[in-house]
Amino acid sequence: LDYQHVQVPFEITLWIMLASLAKIGFHLYNKLPSVVPESCLLIFVGLIMGGIIYGLNDRSPPVMDSDIFFLYLLPPIVLDAGYFMPSRPFFENIGTILLYAVVGTIWNVFGIGFSLYGICQVRVFQLQDVSLLHNLLFGSLIAAVDPVAVLAVFEEIHVNEKLHILVFGESLLNDAVTVVLYKLFRSFCEMPTIKSTDVFAGVGKFFVVGLGGVLVGLSFGFTAAFTTRFTKDIRVIEPLFVFLYSYLSYLTAEMFHLSGIVAIIACAMGMKRYVEANISLKSHTTVKYFMKMWSSVSDTLIFIFLGVSTIGENHEWNWPYICFTVIFCLVWRALGVLVLTFFVNRFHVNTITSKDQFIIAYGGLRGAICFSLVFLLPEFHRKKLFIAATTVVILFTVFVQGMTIRPLVDLLAVKRKRESAPTVGEQIHIRFLDHLLAGIEDISGHWGQYYWKDKLEYFNSKYLQKILLREYDQPKSSIVLLYEKLERKHAIELAEAGQLGHGPAHPSLLGPGFLCSSNDRTLRTDQKLEDIQNPDVLDNMQEILARNLYRIRRTGPAYNRHTLPGESEPSEHAKEILILRHKGL
Amino acid sequence: LDYQHVQVPFEITLWIMLASLAKIGFHLYNKLPSVVPESCLLIFVGLIMGGIIYGLNDRSPPVMDSDIFFLYLLPPIVLDAGYFMPSRPFFENIGTILLYAVVGTIWNVFGIGFSLYGICQVRVFQLQDVSLLHNLLFGSLIAAVDPVAVLAVFEEIHVNEKLHILVFGESLLNDAVTVVLYKLFRSFCEMPTIKSTDVFAGVGKFFVVGLGGVLVGLSFGFTAAFTTRFTKDIRVIEPLFVFLYSYLSYLTAEMFHLSGIVAIIACAMGMKRYVEANISLKSHTTVKYFMKMWSSVSDTLIFIFLGVSTIGENHEWNWPYICFTVIFCLVWRALGVLVLTFFVNRFHVNTITSKDQFIIAYGGLRGAICFSLVFLLPEFHRKKLFIAATTVVILFTVFVQGMTIRPLVDLLAVKRKRESAPTVGEQIHIRFLDHLLAGIEDISGHWGQYYWKDKLEYFNSKYLQKILLREYDQPKSSIVLLYEKLERKHAIELAEAGQLGHGPAHPSLLGPGFLCSSNDRTLRTDQKLEDIQNPDVLDNMQEILARNLYRIRRTGPAYNRHTLPGESEPSEHAKEILILRHKGL
Repeated sequence: LDYQHVQVPFEITLWIMLASLAKIGFHLYNKLPSVVPESCLLIFVGLIMGGIIYGLNDRSPPVMDSDIFFLYLLPPIVLDAGYFMPSRPFFENIGTILLYAVVGTIWNVFGIGFSLYGICQVRVFQLQDVSLLHNLLFGSLIAAVDPVAVLAVFEEIHVNEKLHILVFGESLLNDAVTVVLYKLFRSFCEMPTIKSTDVFAGVGKFFVVGLGGVLVGLSFGFTAAFTTRFTKDIRVIEPLFVFLYSYLSYLTAEMFHLSGIVAIIACAMGMKRYVEANISLKSHTTVKYFMKMWSSVSDTLIFIFLGVSTIGENHEWNWPYICFTVIFCLVWRALGVLVLTFFVNRFHVNTITSKDQFIIAYGGLRGAICFSLVFLLPEFHRKKLFIAATTVVILFTVFVQGMTIRPLVDLLAVKRKRESAPTVGEQIHIRFLDHLLAGIEDISGHWGQYYWKDKLEYFNSKYLQKILLREYDQPKSSIVLLYEKLERKHAIELAEAGQLGHGPAHPSLLGPGFLCSSNDRTLRTDQKLEDIQNPDVLDNMQEILARNLYRIRRTGPAYNRHTLPGESEPSEHAKEILILRHKGL
Repeated sequence: LDYQHVQVPFEITLWIMLASLAKIGFHLYNKLPSVVPESCLLIFVGLIMGGIIYGLNDRSPPVMDSDIFFLYLLPPIVLDAGYFMPSRPFFENIGTILLYAVVGTIWNVFGIGFSLYGICQVRVFQLQDVSLLHNLLFGSLIAAVDPVAVLAVFEEIHVNEKLHILVFGESLLNDAVTVVLYKLFRSFCEMPTIKSTDVFAGVGKFFVVGLGGVLVGLSFGFTAAFTTRFTKDIRVIEPLFVFLYSYLSYLTAEMFHLSGIVAIIACAMGMKRYVEANISLKSHTTVKYFMKMWSSVSDTLIFIFLGVSTIGENHEWNWPYICFTVIFCLVWRALGVLVLTFFVNRFHVNTITSKDQFIIAYGGLRGAICFSLVFLLPEFHRKKLFIAATTVVILFTVFVQGMTIRPLVDLLAVKRKRESAPTVGEQIHIRFLDHLLAGIEDISGHWGQYYWKDKLEYFNSKYLQKILLREYDQPKSSIVLLYEKLERKHAIELAEAGQLGHGPAHPSLLGPGFLCSSNDRTLRTDQKLEDIQNPDVLDNMQEILARNLYRIRRTGPAYNRHTLPGESEPSEHAKEILILRHKGL
């Protein structure tokens, strides 16, 4: 027997196997996952395993290594989150999300830090040796909402899209704030004196960490998209690039002390659109499937390890401090959400209801990130107290809040996610309204959301797509091209005949069956209609319409600062006028 | 900058990225891969990189760690090979493959070892200090054909299936022999005296290593199949089990000093059939895609590392020894193939032509396995000579033989692989012949290939499928069931009417359109025919036919030792007779 030789991969494989089998086990009893969130069950499994290890060895089981967590377990989950992030609600609410993530987190850090310092002054609790700085450091790690825990719980309760994106977006983007504040307070702890310049440097650092992460992520994302332009002959390694580049973006950001989470999300969101268009369908299935698989395994392992690491002798049970930590976490978050939402609602038409506010405050779960950060703390005599408090906060939020949030959502009748996908009609109208609003914003000179979206879309189609897409010039099999062609043909026919036409003004409205000869028309129209009811075809059509309706607007002559009316090609222009005139007749 | 923190994953990711980009680079110029095998190009890239590292650091670049090779790079390639192994030609030629793999490898080891020992006795070459045992040890590592190199070259030249499986199967299965002989000679080198019992123990060990590997592999494979029975609710982690169990089988085999390669192949071949039936189609696409991707990356990394490791000061250039090693490798292999094929051809109808023999002998490429084994040798004063000889043999076989084998195949007009998939008719006839031959073998009492195949199939359908498949009892949407139903209905109708029927004797031959009312018959028949031309539907039909034609034979009354004629259900039996009698009329 030669166990040492294979020990590392063998044990890793066994842990993953255990996690997967645990997942299967829970799902064998259908009722269990509908009552208790999976995360709770997994922590429970971890607790039992930790207990067994503790009982057998009579010493603390190994705690989750922070390096393993940050380098190997966290990236797949964040990549998955970024890649499947619904970009429309995210960007629609980006202001609110950033407010919660930045101001809200800072509010929580200082709120929790100062009030715990107040508790430490109470002589009875014997905590006078915990300094303000240590309390703030603890506040900085306990304040941040955890994306892994939030995702695990919110995936199961299906609240409406906006509510989901507010909590989830906050949990992802607060990473930049957490990184900065945590590192700032940690270095303050080790400094003999703190100058005011250090504080200002810290504030400046926040922008560097956040925006630097975005920049790193986007550059890797675009490189990934560019690389997939050239993989036509070796389809089989296409999925690899998605994973490699996003992982590299994370590692690079971490290397430069930027926010890795922000980087990987920017990378995933940046590349998704182009990569999807470049790679084959099978590659894309593999990418999606493997991402889900990987993140699901990581997530499982994190919760099991969380359970295992809880058992042991790493804790100092000073109950007043621990209880007040839990209370302050709840209170400050609730206050923060109330205050911030007050301001948000003043500037938005689409307000956040008080029910939503309650769920946002209640959904502030803590998880493995706090846990890893508390173990990364430099050694000092009260570290074990912080570990105990963090453990209790995590277990409280995951078990108590995680298990009660679903009944509460039911009880409050919080608006749920709509089950059906939007129809083609809805999609076209939404898109139409977007363009309309962009036009209005452009005319009124208000640089709002639609204005920027429009600019971005213009930049994308003008430059990015040409560089990043393999087949930029070939959206030929498009319903819109057919429409244009028919329109033009019709106009020419009218012009040639020189007569008034009361025929179908929009031939494309008749459907593609219009082209068929009368003999087989009914049959083929039927078939087409059947095709249209097929969800794949529908998706495809939505896609084509979405991509091309924009182009049509672009070739139009009006209300647009980038093209003067005279700029468009003269012959095209003449044709357009011809068509319009004949329509007028 | 904090590079140390992320160094390990960062460098691994960068190496994989380099490998993938190199692959893309080669394929950008379409002509390059058609002349030079990719493996040569990759070694070349490795050589250049090694040269750069050597030039910059002025010391040898890091050699490929044998542990990394055997634990992380080799398993994906072997798993891919085992999973996509065409089982029919493999089992049809298993005898020949084993002969080449076992007897051929032993022949090569001793041939090369003894003749190199002879060279060492020539005083001019200054090699008298290399003992016979060391020569045999060297022979044991240099004799084995390498699956990675063979796969890389033979994938591109498309020789006929039998030839391919002979070379490739040999390269996979000789692992057991190599492991045993290498470890045997290595332990002999360290022993003061060698007893004859040690030699016999070595021979016994061979069976343990080979058969143990098969057992370990099969048990993990069946466990994997059994596990996938329960993944219906969490489709997303299905692919994981395929990878986890096969990797565990490899590691377990390695742990017990068995043949890991044999284990992982047995595992993959054992589980494939059941796993495929249990998991969803998307999961299966992911499994296949990821396997190909992983093996392709591993393969790329291996060849690049091979190139990098070649540069440096690890070599002792004793040219006589090195040149004679190359010559002996070629000569002994050619002789071995000739002698063994002579015996094979005496016992087989389907002989191996002399062209095939030439390609088998010429296709004996050496690769990374030899290379890793030579670095694992215990330190002794001539190790660098062995490293140099191994490097030259690998480069010679990969570059010279690998690059000339394609022109030679063209020149000799070796029979190529047929491009088209077999038709349904062919498949049915092959299957029919199989059953016929199994019956003949059963009657004649000859326990040949078909007899065992039949037994295995019986065991599979009787026990294994019931345990391992999720939906064993539901092959209901089958064309054969329809056929049986129609046959029965027809017979009953005939019996009720009491008249002679000259209607369609085999209603199923009319196609499924037979069931439609005359109104929409033409339309629906057309549609069905279209369906049938669809490759997916065709595959499905082939599958159904393949699975069920067997069952039909089973329910038949004749020539079978497992069921006595009286054993089949009486009512079924009566019906069958009724049908036959009415047919007779």
